[in-house]
Amino acid sequence: MPAKAKAKQSATTVQQADGATLNGLVAVGEGRRRVVIERVTPEIDGGRYPIKRVSGDSVVVECDAFADGHDEIACAVRYRGPGESEWRDAPMQFLVNDRWRGAFTVDAIGRYSYTVIAWMDRFATWEHQLHKRVEAGQDVQVDLLIGAALVHEAAAAAPEAEAAVLRRYEQALRNGDAEAAFAPDLAARMAAHLPRRFVSVYERELQVEVNRPLARFSAWYELFPRSAASEPGRHGTFRDVIARLPYVAELGFDILYLPPIHPIGRQFRKGKNNSVSAQPGEPGSPWAIGAAEGGHKSIHPELGSLDDFRALVAAARDYGIAVALDIAFQCSPDHPYVKEHPEWFRARPDGTIQYAENPPKKYQDIYPFDFESSDWQGLWRELKSIFEYWIAQGVTVFRVDNPHTKSFLFWEWCIAELKREHPELILLSEAFTRPKVMYRLAKLGFTQSYTYFTWRTSKGELIQYLQELTQSEVREFFGPNFWPNTPDILTPQFYPGQRAVFLTRAALAATLTASWGMYGPLYELMHHVPVQGREEYIDSEKYEIHYWNLDHPQSLRHYIARLNRIRRENPALQRNDGLRFHRVDSNYLENEQLIAYSKVTPDLDNIVLVVVNLDPVNLQSGYVQVPTAEWGLEGDFQAHDLISDARYLWNGDFNYIELNPQTTPVHIFRIRRRERDQSGFEFFA
Amino acid sequence: MPAKAKAKQSATTVQQADGATLNGLVAVGEGRRRVVIERVTPEIDGGRYPIKRVSGDSVVVECDAFADGHDEIACAVRYRGPGESEWRDAPMQFLVNDRWRGAFTVDAIGRYSYTVIAWMDRFATWEHQLHKRVEAGQDVQVDLLIGAALVHEAAAAAPEAEAAVLRRYEQALRNGDAEAAFAPDLAARMAAHLPRRFVSVYERELQVEVNRPLARFSAWYELFPRSAASEPGRHGTFRDVIARLPYVAELGFDILYLPPIHPIGRQFRKGKNNSVSAQPGEPGSPWAIGAAEGGHKSIHPELGSLDDFRALVAAARDYGIAVALDIAFQCSPDHPYVKEHPEWFRARPDGTIQYAENPPKKYQDIYPFDFESSDWQGLWRELKSIFEYWIAQGVTVFRVDNPHTKSFLFWEWCIAELKREHPELILLSEAFTRPKVMYRLAKLGFTQSYTYFTWRTSKGELIQYLQELTQSEVREFFGPNFWPNTPDILTPQFYPGQRAVFLTRAALAATLTASWGMYGPLYELMHHVPVQGREEYIDSEKYEIHYWNLDHPQSLRHYIARLNRIRRENPALQRNDGLRFHRVDSNYLENEQLIAYSKVTPDLDNIVLVVVNLDPVNLQSGYVQVPTAEWGLEGDFQAHDLISDARYLWNGDFNYIELNPQTTPVHIFRIRRRERDQSGFEFFA
Repeated sequence: MPAKAKAKQSATTVQQADGATLNGLVAVGEGRRRVVIERVTPEIDGGRYPIKRVSGDSVVVECDAFADGHDEIACAVRYRGPGESEWRDAPMQFLVNDRWRGAFTVDAIGRYSYTVIAWMDRFATWEHQLHKRVEAGQDVQVDLLIGAALVHEAAAAAPEAEAAVLRRYEQALRNGDAEAAFAPDLAARMAAHLPRRFVSVYERELQVEVNRPLARFSAWYELFPRSAASEPGRHGTFRDVIARLPYVAELGFDILYLPPIHPIGRQFRKGKNNSVSAQPGEPGSPWAIGAAEGGHKSIHPELGSLDDFRALVAAARDYGIAVALDIAFQCSPDHPYVKEHPEWFRARPDGTIQYAENPPKKYQDIYPFDFESSDWQGLWRELKSIFEYWIAQGVTVFRVDNPHTKSFLFWEWCIAELKREHPELILLSEAFTRPKVMYRLAKLGFTQSYTYFTWRTSKGELIQYLQELTQSEVREFFGPNFWPNTPDILTPQFYPGQRAVFLTRAALAATLTASWGMYGPLYELMHHVPVQGREEYIDSEKYEIHYWNLDHPQSLRHYIARLNRIRRENPALQRNDGLRFHRVDSNYLENEQLIAYSKVTPDLDNIVLVVVNLDPVNLQSGYVQVPTAEWGLEGDFQAHDLISDARYLWNGDFNYIELNPQTTPVHIFRIRRRERDQSGFEFFA
Repeated sequence: MPAKAKAKQSATTVQQADGATLNGLVAVGEGRRRVVIERVTPEIDGGRYPIKRVSGDSVVVECDAFADGHDEIACAVRYRGPGESEWRDAPMQFLVNDRWRGAFTVDAIGRYSYTVIAWMDRFATWEHQLHKRVEAGQDVQVDLLIGAALVHEAAAAAPEAEAAVLRRYEQALRNGDAEAAFAPDLAARMAAHLPRRFVSVYERELQVEVNRPLARFSAWYELFPRSAASEPGRHGTFRDVIARLPYVAELGFDILYLPPIHPIGRQFRKGKNNSVSAQPGEPGSPWAIGAAEGGHKSIHPELGSLDDFRALVAAARDYGIAVALDIAFQCSPDHPYVKEHPEWFRARPDGTIQYAENPPKKYQDIYPFDFESSDWQGLWRELKSIFEYWIAQGVTVFRVDNPHTKSFLFWEWCIAELKREHPELILLSEAFTRPKVMYRLAKLGFTQSYTYFTWRTSKGELIQYLQELTQSEVREFFGPNFWPNTPDILTPQFYPGQRAVFLTRAALAATLTASWGMYGPLYELMHHVPVQGREEYIDSEKYEIHYWNLDHPQSLRHYIARLNRIRRENPALQRNDGLRFHRVDSNYLENEQLIAYSKVTPDLDNIVLVVVNLDPVNLQSGYVQVPTAEWGLEGDFQAHDLISDARYLWNGDFNYIELNPQTTPVHIFRIRRRERDQSGFEFFA
């Protein structure tokens, strides 16, 4: 192509491009926004899910922010609480390498929004450059006029009292007084009043789900009401559970969780030790929900009436205890839904309904819901209404059975809908499954989750798992709840029945994370015999009614009570951040049987150091590393063991500890600084 | 509140919630989508920016995907090329821990889109469960009917020939033939034809910017046309540069980059060695753009005419060389824009225009554009039109001067607009600034970028930097271009003038990344004298005209030519993935002066192992670790040094090497396997 023809063709191209340009420019909006905001944290999956906090928490937000050229910038966290239409700003400080940090506090329960804004800091830029010019002895007359114009602009936007002060500065600058530019108060006044131009707003609006404090700091106690009778041989009732409340309160628990309380199916009922068919009179599993007497909104008649249940909820509340119900979305073949809504279940070609299976295993006493039902909308509404029914009875805490076998979309919708009306709801996810599935459920809205704690027994396993839970992104949305046992899980470390194992596993659960729970009274009574070859209790309460002697002299009830009291008295144990593991050396090598970790409040007012002997047989001793400088400890300090009430005088970074599994294999030290009162008296605070 | 009143109130709440529910359900859409898709990679900043590839590349996509329950799922990458409206699917394979991987190839230049889809694999689920039932000896009659219905559904959706086969399978299943379910071809037929129900689509549509191969694999040569005259004392011209093309081609470069070619300002012109005012006759800096003769769309008269420039572009093309221009968006005080568009510059209170400054330094010969101009739209359009003007002259490669001092929003818009019309464009960002700023410019659209290579000289520094560039997320969008020198940068390692340093730095640049460049003829002539106290050449061409003797006997031209030939002949050097560092031991300790790394093609057909002696004084020797098993090397193999053409017979994982800085301090080995031809003759391939 000759050059001229080519040039002509290109000119056309330019014209076309110009046409497109206009569109492009409209899409850009205000093109003078010069600050870039990137990598805002915390942010889960590109802002798709909220982070979680409890009321009173601080939300620390960071971002990368920078502009073209060398001018100064300013950044702020922009946030608003539930129902607020106006944004509030919290200033951010420069850290290093274009990173900025700011924070705001969440008080109200519900959804907060936050993002980051940034703009060119015109006054700081000018002042900064003026400073260099003055130092170099340059003529700054024109520069002072530029500054005066900025101050004038700020004065015009300020309330009158401020404006008067600013006008005096303006005049000083106009008069050639360079020193006025550096007056200590001027920068703050200018930051407050100089209009921000061309403000950049981070592209995503992020969310914080703020829960009540119980969502993070809670101690759960699970019991079977039908085994709560005051004498052997009788079916326990809600009234019996009311009588059990002082005991639960004495143990220090604040959530009392009951397995399903609904009518129990009769078809294919399971017998003692999960035998395929029950003998006459056997009570069946409470998780086989639904019978002629009703389904998920009914109460098993032998437990009592709805009024009895309401009385239990009210009585528990007087003890500061919340009653938690079990939501298990599955039906026995006798459940009224099976007849009323056959479309909610999967039909087989022979006309039967598909029961639960994990081939070749069959669970003929359970029909799962079909989340691919043509009436999925009706199913979703009904399932949500089950929660609403029990919320109306005063229940705000639920343990959800196997949520990972129900549709994720359902949970996301259901929890969002429920929490919009009831932001106080707490939902514990019982999904013992693969990690990504557990984390997804947490992102979708479950407040707390069971964990792998039960299977993490060695020092290395515990440290690695806790680091994942408390130091990776997971901490922003996953609320771990550590249970040493459940009706479904009795892990091998308990089989020998060693008291030390019961003591240490409870202490680990109660102090590693802010929420823990145990299944009693089997735990405090140290039950430890499994079904042969399975990690489950023999003669499980799931299939039969028991009577428990709570006053057994071997009971750990006082130890458990002490653990829970220590948790209540030490704010550091009520949060999951601030956890840190410490080296314990024996003969200059890491002792793999002694695990040591601390939890501290951000103000270092409460420092708790836990040391646990994981060896249930041998006395272990070693030197635990204490970061005295970081904790502000000088000279002697006190390690006050809150379990034994013994007080040790420690000094320096390495201190001797020794734990005997035959007595108490756990130290929970409150670290106390030496202080001096007004009269010169020294004490440990 | 009495219980009844409370219940009534709650009933109201339920009703209200149901009202909201309907809205919620509409928002959910199809609620039966049971598969969740998360953490798709690659994905930059939540999909905000495209990843980059060159045509012919494979895009490997991974995601987490899982469903409720235990059914089997299937996943596919969904993608389409530029201008395509139909999506194509590429199957994904399960890896581990809910992770899936798939890939597609990009052929066309422009924007590809991709995302991930997933669905319940009904047939695989059924087959899998049937297998377990059959193994357990269960009655599977009803299960075979369920499978038959699935095969029937697939047959109804399949083309007739396939449908006929499927109907035979259906009949076999209906006849109770369980073996038919496991026929090897049935699974593939079902995957192809069974309609997918309730397909989940990942929430974000991601982008790939596909460039021509030169965007990744390029060798740049920078020269000052005015110093290209064939005899001393004359201002070089484009015609002189045409005469220089055989030399540049002989050296093996494929991009010839010229500093600005526009009229040079006269006001505040800089003299020799950056002196504040030029003496009469001094040519000034080409970066002080604009004079009475014109601005960014004009040519400095002494270089020649526009036709001469076009002739250069055409002649270079005949040598396989692209001419790259320098785009420096700044003006000398004489630039026509200053009079025509005073609103594009910042005015000072004294009526003057703000020149460039980094207080207390002043650059009175340069006026920066004001990107906060009220006419920012006019400014943006004009700047874009400068690119378009030179594109119309046949230029498709640009080096952009200091892009980080111009607005980020401008670049994002400008590059997107340009590339929509000209997807072949290659833009090299000259932003020597903080890492996040450099990476942002790459995300916004710059194809390549200068790097910190010049300041990374020790083994540890090089390894750390290359790992960031080739193994972190950065590799998805940042195109590193390694330059051992530029007119602005002469780093201290060159000051002593040691030949070994010139040899090693060029070899590192040419082999560590797929793009490199050098500023000649100063590099091949080993110029090494800095301005006292500054990392810059003395008597810089930026301020004066030089004449260079290209035939100097010490010239490295043949060495440079060999480096570029090795790059062309070895595909492994034409990509940045596949880079790996190897241990080099001397006396069982890592030798910190010998750096060894390999690059391999995915099929292991081309294996290049580079060893460089970073010590310019002493001979260094050691044992380099060769991963023979991974590279499929058995027994003897050959290390063919492409620099010296020497061939070494190696064996096993540790092989001796020795590099003398006084001769050639670099090995670039092609690793050749022992093979045997049809007649039994052994050779190294």
